[in-house]
Amino acid sequence: METCRRNVDLNGGIHLPNPHIATMEEDVLYHFALGTKSHDLKKMFGDVKFVCTGGSPKRMQSFAYLLVEELGHQLPAGQTLVNITKATDRYSMFKVGPVLSVSHGMGIPSISIMLHEIIKLLSHAGCQDVTFFRIGTSGGLGLTPGTVVITEQAVDALLKPSMEFAILGKKVTRPADLDRGLTNQLLDCAMADDHFQTVLGKTMCTDDFYEGQARLDGALCDYTEEDKMQFLREIYDKGVRNIEMECICFAAMLNQAGLKGAVVCATLLDRLKGDQVSTPHEIMSEWQQRPQKIVARYIRRQLGISSK
Amino acid sequence: METCRRNVDLNGGIHLPNPHIATMEEDVLYHFALGTKSHDLKKMFGDVKFVCTGGSPKRMQSFAYLLVEELGHQLPAGQTLVNITKATDRYSMFKVGPVLSVSHGMGIPSISIMLHEIIKLLSHAGCQDVTFFRIGTSGGLGLTPGTVVITEQAVDALLKPSMEFAILGKKVTRPADLDRGLTNQLLDCAMADDHFQTVLGKTMCTDDFYEGQARLDGALCDYTEEDKMQFLREIYDKGVRNIEMECICFAAMLNQAGLKGAVVCATLLDRLKGDQVSTPHEIMSEWQQRPQKIVARYIRRQLGISSK
Repeated sequence: METCRRNVDLNGGIHLPNPHIATMEEDVLYHFALGTKSHDLKKMFGDVKFVCTGGSPKRMQSFAYLLVEELGHQLPAGQTLVNITKATDRYSMFKVGPVLSVSHGMGIPSISIMLHEIIKLLSHAGCQDVTFFRIGTSGGLGLTPGTVVITEQAVDALLKPSMEFAILGKKVTRPADLDRGLTNQLLDCAMADDHFQTVLGKTMCTDDFYEGQARLDGALCDYTEEDKMQFLREIYDKGVRNIEMECICFAAMLNQAGLKGAVVCATLLDRLKGDQVSTPHEIMSEWQQRPQKIVARYIRRQLGISSK
Repeated sequence: METCRRNVDLNGGIHLPNPHIATMEEDVLYHFALGTKSHDLKKMFGDVKFVCTGGSPKRMQSFAYLLVEELGHQLPAGQTLVNITKATDRYSMFKVGPVLSVSHGMGIPSISIMLHEIIKLLSHAGCQDVTFFRIGTSGGLGLTPGTVVITEQAVDALLKPSMEFAILGKKVTRPADLDRGLTNQLLDCAMADDHFQTVLGKTMCTDDFYEGQARLDGALCDYTEEDKMQFLREIYDKGVRNIEMECICFAAMLNQAGLKGAVVCATLLDRLKGDQVSTPHEIMSEWQQRPQKIVARYIRRQLGISSK
C-alpha cells in the first residue's frame, strides 16, 4: 500500500504525516495527561507492538487482565496493573508487555482524539511495526447474537467506503480500507470448537445509536417500522453484517498514518429482530470477551506463545 | 417556538416526538443501565427541573458537590452522593434535588446517545418544565484564556447554523437554535466582581479536536500555519468565539424535542495564539468551575434561593 510505504521507514518506525511535530519543543498529549517533557515515553512505551482499543474503560481493563493470563505475563509479587492515564478521566490505558489496551469512548470524535494522541505517543516512543485492533460491540444483521464480525470493509452511514473529514471549513474524503492480510489472519484465529461463530462482513459506522441506526426506540423518530426494515434489509443485501460507531474513522486514520489495523466486534442483538439491548449482563459480558479472545490468540501467535 | 408548542403539553410535560415509545412494554435505557421495569423512574427522577451536562465524568461529579453547597442541599447524616449509572461506565449521573448532573463524553455521537436516553428518562418520569445546560470546555478565539462563552448560535465545522443527521441512508438537516431568553438570563448571571469575563458568541462544533479545529499538533496535518491562521481569523470575523465538539447536536436535538437549553463553556486557551493545552492543572480546574458557577447562580435564582 502506497500510504504505508510513505509513512513507515525501513525499520518499521512510525513517521507522522505532520511535519510540524518535529519542530515542537514539547508535545502535551492532553487527553492522556502525558507529555514528551513530563514523561519518558521511550522508556514507558518503546516496546509496544500492539494497540487494542474499545469503547468502555472497564472493558479495556478486563482485557488487560485477560492478556496477563493469555500471554503468561508475570507481574512481580505485590504489583498489579494500573491505569496509565489515571490523571484524566477521558480514556483509560493499560499496558501488558508489548500490548496497550486503551479505551476510546463512543463515536468517531472520541476515537479520533484517542488515535491522534496514541499515534503521536508511539512515534515519540520510537515504536516499530505496531498493529492496531478495535475490539468492540455492535448491532448485528441476520446473525445469532453473540456472533463475532471481523470487518472486511468499513462503510459510512450512506454506505460509502471512505470517511469525510471537515478540515479548514472544507470536506476532505479519505479512504477507509483495512489490511486484508491481517483480517484473514484474524479469521484464521477463530477455532472450530469455539461455541460461537466468527464471520467476515461489511461494518456500517454511524454517528448516532438511535435514528442513525434506524432504531424505533430513541427520543426522536419520524419513520415507520416498514421504513426501518426496508433500510436494514437493503444494507444487509449490500453485505453489511454489523453496525457500530467508530470503524470508519479507525480505518481512515490508520490508513492516512500508514499503519495497519483490524476491527473485531461482538454483535449484541440481531437488528432484523429488534432494537433494544436487553440481554442479561452476564451473557453480554461473555459475548464481549469473544473478540478479545480472537485478538489475544492472534497476539499469542505473533509472539510465538504456544496455545493453551 | 412552534416545535416547543407541539411537543410540550400545557402542563410543561415532555411529549416525545416518537410515537413508538408509547407502544413499548419496557424501555431499557441501555447506556445508563436504567429501565422502565427495573427502576421506578417517576420516583427517582419525577422532580427534575434542570439537566446539566459536560464531557468529563469527574467534572460532573464535582459540579454535583458544588450544587450541594450552592443550593444549600441537605444530605442526611451518613449519606453522600452516588453515581446513579454506576452499573455502566459509559456516563456518570448525579442528582442534587431538582438538578441532574450527567456526563456526555466527547463529541456529537456520545452526547447524542446521552440526550436520547435522558429525554426518554425525563418523559417516563413525568418531568415538567425542564431546562438543559451544557457546561463544557472549549478553545477560545481572541479571548483571554479562562473567559466564559455563552453560545448565542451553534454552527457546524462548515459554519452552518444547523446539523446534518444521517437517517435511513439520507441526510436530514435540522435547525440548531438556542433559546435567546435563556441565553440572556444566563449572561445576566455574570457579575461585575467576577474575576473573569463572560461573553456571548457563536460556537463552532467540530468532529475532531486536531485537524477538525485547525490544529497543527495532531498526528495528521497537511496544511501550513498560514492556512490555519487564515481559517481561524475568518471564523473569528464571522463571530465565532469558541470551538468545541457537542453544541450543535445539543441544540438540534433539544430543538427537535421542543426543549430549551443553553451552552456555557470555559475557554482553555486562545487558539489565535497556539494549539497545545498546557496550562497547569490547578489553573484549568478553576477555569472549568466558572461556567458551573454561572449556571448554579441561574438555578439558585429560579429556585428562589438567595445569593450568598
